[in-house]
Amino acid sequence: MERKVLRTHCPDAKGLISKITNICYKHQLNIIRNDEYVDHDSGHFFMRTELEGYFNDHTFLADLQDALPNGSEHSLTPAGKKRVVIMVTKEPHCLGDILMKRFAGAMNIDIAAVVGNYDTLAELTEKFDIPYHTVSHEGLDRNTHEQEIAAIIDSYQPDYVVLAKYMRILSPDFVARYHQRLINIHHSFLPAFIGASPYQQAYDRGVKMIGATAHFVTNDLDEGPIIEQDVTHINHTFNAIDMAKAGRDVEKSVLSRALNLVLEGKVFVHGNKTVVFK
Amino acid sequence: MERKVLRTHCPDAKGLISKITNICYKHQLNIIRNDEYVDHDSGHFFMRTELEGYFNDHTFLADLQDALPNGSEHSLTPAGKKRVVIMVTKEPHCLGDILMKRFAGAMNIDIAAVVGNYDTLAELTEKFDIPYHTVSHEGLDRNTHEQEIAAIIDSYQPDYVVLAKYMRILSPDFVARYHQRLINIHHSFLPAFIGASPYQQAYDRGVKMIGATAHFVTNDLDEGPIIEQDVTHINHTFNAIDMAKAGRDVEKSVLSRALNLVLEGKVFVHGNKTVVFK
Amino acid sequence: MERKVLRTHCPDAKGLISKITNICYKHQLNIIRNDEYVDHDSGHFFMRTELEGYFNDHTFLADLQDALPNGSEHSLTPAGKKRVVIMVTKEPHCLGDILMKRFAGAMNIDIAAVVGNYDTLAELTEKFDIPYHTVSHEGLDRNTHEQEIAAIIDSYQPDYVVLAKYMRILSPDFVARYHQRLINIHHSFLPAFIGASPYQQAYDRGVKMIGATAHFVTNDLDEGPIIEQDVTHINHTFNAIDMAKAGRDVEKSVLSRALNLVLEGKVFVHGNKTVVFK
Amino acid sequence: MERKVLRTHCPDAKGLISKITNICYKHQLNIIRNDEYVDHDSGHFFMRTELEGYFNDHTFLADLQDALPNGSEHSLTPAGKKRVVIMVTKEPHCLGDILMKRFAGAMNIDIAAVVGNYDTLAELTEKFDIPYHTVSHEGLDRNTHEQEIAAIIDSYQPDYVVLAKYMRILSPDFVARYHQRLINIHHSFLPAFIGASPYQQAYDRGVKMIGATAHFVTNDLDEGPIIEQDVTHINHTFNAIDMAKAGRDVEKSVLSRALNLVLEGKVFVHGNKTVVFK
Repeated sequence: MERKVLRTHCPDAKGLISKITNICYKHQLNIIRNDEYVDHDSGHFFMRTELEGYFNDHTFLADLQDALPNGSEHSLTPAGKKRVVIMVTKEPHCLGDILMKRFAGAMNIDIAAVVGNYDTLAELTEKFDIPYHTVSHEGLDRNTHEQEIAAIIDSYQPDYVVLAKYMRILSPDFVARYHQRLINIHHSFLPAFIGASPYQQAYDRGVKMIGATAHFVTNDLDEGPIIEQDVTHINHTFNAIDMAKAGRDVEKSVLSRALNLVLEGKVFVHGNKTVVFK
Repeated sequence: MERKVLRTHCPDAKGLISKITNICYKHQLNIIRNDEYVDHDSGHFFMRTELEGYFNDHTFLADLQDALPNGSEHSLTPAGKKRVVIMVTKEPHCLGDILMKRFAGAMNIDIAAVVGNYDTLAELTEKFDIPYHTVSHEGLDRNTHEQEIAAIIDSYQPDYVVLAKYMRILSPDFVARYHQRLINIHHSFLPAFIGASPYQQAYDRGVKMIGATAHFVTNDLDEGPIIEQDVTHINHTFNAIDMAKAGRDVEKSVLSRALNLVLEGKVFVHGNKTVVFK
Repeated sequence: MERKVLRTHCPDAKGLISKITNICYKHQLNIIRNDEYVDHDSGHFFMRTELEGYFNDHTFLADLQDALPNGSEHSLTPAGKKRVVIMVTKEPHCLGDILMKRFAGAMNIDIAAVVGNYDTLAELTEKFDIPYHTVSHEGLDRNTHEQEIAAIIDSYQPDYVVLAKYMRILSPDFVARYHQRLINIHHSFLPAFIGASPYQQAYDRGVKMIGATAHFVTNDLDEGPIIEQDVTHINHTFNAIDMAKAGRDVEKSVLSRALNLVLEGKVFVHGNKTVVFK
Repeated sequence: MERKVLRTHCPDAKGLISKITNICYKHQLNIIRNDEYVDHDSGHFFMRTELEGYFNDHTFLADLQDALPNGSEHSLTPAGKKRVVIMVTKEPHCLGDILMKRFAGAMNIDIAAVVGNYDTLAELTEKFDIPYHTVSHEGLDRNTHEQEIAAIIDSYQPDYVVLAKYMRILSPDFVARYHQRLINIHHSFLPAFIGASPYQQAYDRGVKMIGATAHFVTNDLDEGPIIEQDVTHINHTFNAIDMAKAGRDVEKSVLSRALNLVLEGKVFVHGNKTVVFK
């Protein structure tokens, strides 16, 4: 007996839930958990179904194909670990939290490798017996640098690429290569403080809360679909350094939660937004 | 065209979602929103379906009856305001929040009447043109007192009875009369500080957070199914009075949120717990 | 025996706490609570001291004047209710929360009057026996309109003016007239979503949290010193109307908390920021 | 120039702040940050003063001794890292978070050693070049087991001992040995769910939030002075295992925050409560 996750999205139509669950029923697959959502503005339907049973993927997917309207997309993947490559620069807190969660068996993740533009985090990564690749950007133009990184990433064939405080801007080509598979943690409560130095901006503005945002990366910098956000209260005694320190705990927590949701297939991208089944 | 809410719960079985949504489809009812949950420990299935269309309640419910397993319960009610009687003692904050939300059109509620064992809140209630009944407990034994209250409540035929800081213990008879229709706000993060004077208990214990719990009332005092809880941070500078003051904001907010969920048919009672579709 | 609040701020210098508390000691005033803060970036000192005893304001303040450096400002005011005029447009939730807190004795506030550019909230205000003034903006230029409002406000000599969802932009003259006494609730987590329709902006951006910001009003719209902020989690099922509904609870709660802090003399304005002793 | 932290607590009396700050002023020590609090119930005064300058500890402390009332206690310690021994059983999340924070330089901590009653976490600890001691409890009575542990701890002369999910009950002798230096993380929102299996208890009770509590250990199990607490929302879909998983993130976060506060000298124990300057 296996457990798999069926993800379906398509233009909304009457009877979709009925059609999909009928097919599951016909194939004698037990529905462990089902979530669905209709975006009434765009008329789009999203459904995630956790199934248990003996799967004949081919006929099951063919049946779905027949039953669903044109323009539908669906995927059936085994529940379980997804393969990830993590990109970093120098800050250890987000990488560290993912490494610890994997070590503790608390995340459905297989960390294939870590790639950094500095070697700062090599030692930490290798403590956990995970390969670390340093690809310095020095002396390279952006395209060459990214191609070297992409070659390494692709050699691992990851499901997702996670930017765990990777501090360089990525080109449209790189972003396109990992369409809807590239996840970033931004150190602010987007859309406030877009761009560099958000903690300095937050300090200058005198805010009483700081936050972090995990999002899929698109070509519009800091504008991709948001997966998860959170904040923490601060006060007038915090300078920009204190804010950054407090912010790091929010960053690591938001990134880990977002990553968990993505790894479990609970996140759908819909235009510039996400549908997240919690 | 009408909008109604179908609530179903029954022993779990294969194909339930399929069967129920098939019937909706057959009746040409559009599913606006659907939530379902299977409690795998007890093997029980819960489903809430918001439907839009032209309803023939009789044949629709008969079709469901035929399709569902023995032991299933379902109800079909119009989306919209539910009728409520509120019971109070002297504290205005929870009553006040519900009155204000009703005034602002922010809650699907029809407040039929307020009943208090003091007249303290009569003036506030009547400002909003809602009848207030004072039923003093003085000189009455508990049964007689409760019978007088029940007579008033029943004259309004409410869907729910809300204890908005009603500070007297209710008898099993009274509780049984409003089975799964009696909602209380308890001024602590249950199960901590069960019983009287939770803020004094919290102060004595030196806690760093205080909370509130909205729950259905059962015969086990403070032990009924929890609908909603929340907390707020406090610190060493709070004495028991400060805690009560901070707590009141949590109480009113938790009660209003719980009530909203109940009024929208999003809460199922399951043994001593609840299933809440948010 | 009286209780008063001494507020001091001045350029930082060695021994300031010592000097101020010495004077309190000399005058046999008991320090009930003391908070101080030095902003090391600007070299500025802030202190709030709650005192109990028999006050000779004249000699006490003269002693302080002698002891403190040039450029110091201090004030001594009785602990207790402050007088406030509230400005509104049509939305009742923030006004309603303040009215209810005053009714319950949960806020140190004397609401002298409510002024609205519509009469929508007259009925609600008058339920609580507070004068309501409608000053319609129709047919008036902004200056004339504001002068009529200011005349009414000034007739009540309030300590503070609260914009409880007053939805018109105020002129620099009006803002200057109530320098550091004009408090606004902005329906977003500033500085995200500056300007109009923040909930529509939040919806378009697909954020996972919405917030509210209470701030002093300055000429830079939505840019004044922030007093208090908070947020609430939302998800993909919220449209802009749902966001606004969820947002209202945050708005009223943030405004009431900010107002409490201001009324208790716990907020200092420092450039474009605040120092808040919680 | 050095930075030190002066901690004073004593029976309250008029002029204490004045006396203490006068002495700082006389010794030409600059007050970087000052916090004080009077517990009016017990008439006790607490003050934490961060000082910068050239210290003559001997005369400074002698001056304080002369100025303060009988029954006062004070200490002057260099700002900077405190030495800690961590005790564990098998769960890595709390230990891991402290190790990562130390690795990142985000905590003022010198982890002298980790002691476990199993060797499960030896590998993780040693990755970070910190000595790990396994002291199995098997075949030993409690006293002998604790004496072996205490001998190891004492050989490192730590300032604090942290129970990072150490799952055995400690004897009064052991607790007394590390009076006010022994910090525990309890996996519930104390005082709810005292004792073993709090997540199972929470599941059985159907709560909507779970929490964690960091506290000093006293002989009354789970009853020591609380330093920090926090909670996270859960819902009906969480079984006891899911709750434990969600709870671990709260546990590690609460323990790290509590530890930070203790290491910075911001926590005073007062009877069965704490005064915490945040």
